[in-house]
Amino acid sequence: MNKRGMLIILSGPSGCGKGTVVKELLSRRDDTVLSVSVTTRSPRPGEVDGTHYFFRTKEQFEEMIQRDELLEYASYSGNYYGTPLPPIEEWLNAGKNVLLEIEVQGAQKVMERCPDHVSVFIAAPSLEVLEQRLRGRGTEAEEVIERRLNAAKEEMATAERYRYYVVNDEVELAVQRIETILAAESMCYHRMK
Amino acid sequence: MNKRGMLIILSGPSGCGKGTVVKELLSRRDDTVLSVSVTTRSPRPGEVDGTHYFFRTKEQFEEMIQRDELLEYASYSGNYYGTPLPPIEEWLNAGKNVLLEIEVQGAQKVMERCPDHVSVFIAAPSLEVLEQRLRGRGTEAEEVIERRLNAAKEEMATAERYRYYVVNDEVELAVQRIETILAAESMCYHRMK
Repeated sequence: MNKRGMLIILSGPSGCGKGTVVKELLSRRDDTVLSVSVTTRSPRPGEVDGTHYFFRTKEQFEEMIQRDELLEYASYSGNYYGTPLPPIEEWLNAGKNVLLEIEVQGAQKVMERCPDHVSVFIAAPSLEVLEQRLRGRGTEAEEVIERRLNAAKEEMATAERYRYYVVNDEVELAVQRIETILAAESMCYHRMK
Repeated sequence: MNKRGMLIILSGPSGCGKGTVVKELLSRRDDTVLSVSVTTRSPRPGEVDGTHYFFRTKEQFEEMIQRDELLEYASYSGNYYGTPLPPIEEWLNAGKNVLLEIEVQGAQKVMERCPDHVSVFIAAPSLEVLEQRLRGRGTEAEEVIERRLNAAKEEMATAERYRYYVVNDEVELAVQRIETILAAESMCYHRMK
């Protein structure tokens, strides 16, 4: 029998570079998979059901809500987005770690529903660097940048809800830090037994 | 200002090899010191006050109890043994990790009194190996070995009280595992801030 995998909850403000860190981490670890969200929005060209999202109808989504199969869900611009529990449970039982890249409110709900998790907050080295990165994209109006920066500051203030705080000064270092955390967490007594 | 050090509580059954692991760990890390116990027994030849033990009179020891300066204490064959808090606090405030190698009952008291700790249980790979190691010393009577083995089994049953479970199959690996745990724990949010 496989040892049960770990549920890794990972959040961080816009501009912290978590997307790159997650991609690099997943490319190195075949014991870890990314959780796939479910949505009622239509697939965009190239998007594959079960890979990018689980694409479902509104009725199907609402049935999942009724069956309590969603760890969390929200509605944006008329579409539902949510985190389905059954595929996560399957992966965990198969011994895979499941990485959930999720915004702060959703993370909070998952932490409450799944107490056995590893929570990691990814932070930019400083607000100055975060601002540089948001500006560096060079494509946004000042107003958009200001709004994102304020949102990022609010998100930074939620870091205390996560067990681990990983500074993303360099992608390579950030990935190594997360791997160290996973190695340590796999030595927790309740996971060894 | 230094970042506060971590209090590392380390236990394990007789024969698990924790003494060797601790010695090797300390030789590699100048950020980590071993907690020194206080005792009322007389120094043996070569024992240095403040290094091997803090040697104190019974009156001095009882004053420490009165002042609530001992994290835990016990009495064996007419002598007191205890873990003094003030030197530990000094080291932690100076940014050093303090390693407390302590038996199970004492560990429990320290965990309750100092909730911000890192607890590690060192285990032999199996009871068979533990028995081999206890027998391997070759100097003990069968009765003594049986008694130690039973004590070790009872101690193994307390492993669930510790956050981490480190198997000492090889000293080098066990030391690396503890270093991984310390690296991860130093990324805990409450220690980063």
